[in-house]
Amino acid sequence: MKTLVIYTHPNHQSLSYEFLQQVLQGSGENPNIAEIQVLDLYEEGFDPVLVFNKEKRRRDMHIDPKLAKYRDQIQWADKIVFVYPIWWGRPPAMLLGYIDQMFASNFAYRDNGGMLPEGLLKGKSAVCISTMKGPTFYPLYWLNNAHKILMRKALLSYVGIKNVKFFEFGNMESPKGQHAQKLDKVYRYFKAVAR
Amino acid sequence: MKTLVIYTHPNHQSLSYEFLQQVLQGSGENPNIAEIQVLDLYEEGFDPVLVFNKEKRRRDMHIDPKLAKYRDQIQWADKIVFVYPIWWGRPPAMLLGYIDQMFASNFAYRDNGGMLPEGLLKGKSAVCISTMKGPTFYPLYWLNNAHKILMRKALLSYVGIKNVKFFEFGNMESPKGQHAQKLDKVYRYFKAVAR
Repeated sequence: MKTLVIYTHPNHQSLSYEFLQQVLQGSGENPNIAEIQVLDLYEEGFDPVLVFNKEKRRRDMHIDPKLAKYRDQIQWADKIVFVYPIWWGRPPAMLLGYIDQMFASNFAYRDNGGMLPEGLLKGKSAVCISTMKGPTFYPLYWLNNAHKILMRKALLSYVGIKNVKFFEFGNMESPKGQHAQKLDKVYRYFKAVAR
Repeated sequence: MKTLVIYTHPNHQSLSYEFLQQVLQGSGENPNIAEIQVLDLYEEGFDPVLVFNKEKRRRDMHIDPKLAKYRDQIQWADKIVFVYPIWWGRPPAMLLGYIDQMFASNFAYRDNGGMLPEGLLKGKSAVCISTMKGPTFYPLYWLNNAHKILMRKALLSYVGIKNVKFFEFGNMESPKGQHAQKLDKVYRYFKAVAR
């Protein structure tokens, strides 16, 4: 199983970075995971701004040569792991700008004229690991689960990725946040996951 | 009533741009609207990437001198109008990156130790005008209304803006999309709105 980790946090002195380390350590000990690549969007200096206009057509985004290496990574991967904090109820703009550009028509999905398109990334699986300052019941009850719905239904299911696992960790700025147990949960998941 | 329009679309040959024109025309004919400013995030070359680290603390974001002019605009405005397309069930990364940076703690809200913070932008009103390719029932039923919830509850209500009006227009790539009526609806709203 080839695994791509898309990591989005500006600061390596963060809990998100500690979660990334658990993903890597667990994966390294998992015989089902043959290879792992990390795309650290901030370190990469990824430009999240999707531009299209008369000269640069949106319909050509799936063959934009500047994005070829990122498309190759997605195609290469059997499993895509997103690690990010929750800001304003959803992932940071940096990750959403990656999504705006990478999950292009005729690369990630194909419009065949029906109500929903054909997902071109089918067969892959995904894991979303998010951390937030508040308690996890806040997005679930107050925000109608908006973050998970955007990731699962608006994005991943749309491009054909149906096997999606979420880790949503709250109270991350609280000393009672049980950080060690949460980190260990992620480590143990990646050490054992089979698909 | 001083009105700030935050416009987010890469291409001026777009329906979003036509909606912006209706906002401006209606507002210009409305005696309640004294002044209007437009922030075109793409034209402005706004950098949507929120960076914080050891040197640049997140807690100082509300006094970041690079963002002072944008803070002044928000403080100046009685009404904030967002015009944007819906991509992947939510606004473009460019607008969300503006939000990540501008609605900072101790500028837009203040944490007083309670469950919810004190909104520092109270008294202002907001309008969100969004366009999407698919029909409007898709986000409402399939995505649990995630876009509106993110704008209304996760953001605007959180910073104290309770008076929020939505225009959500679907079928924007269909010739049967009734574009003229939709544009006119926005024009008439801005011509008459009183607060």
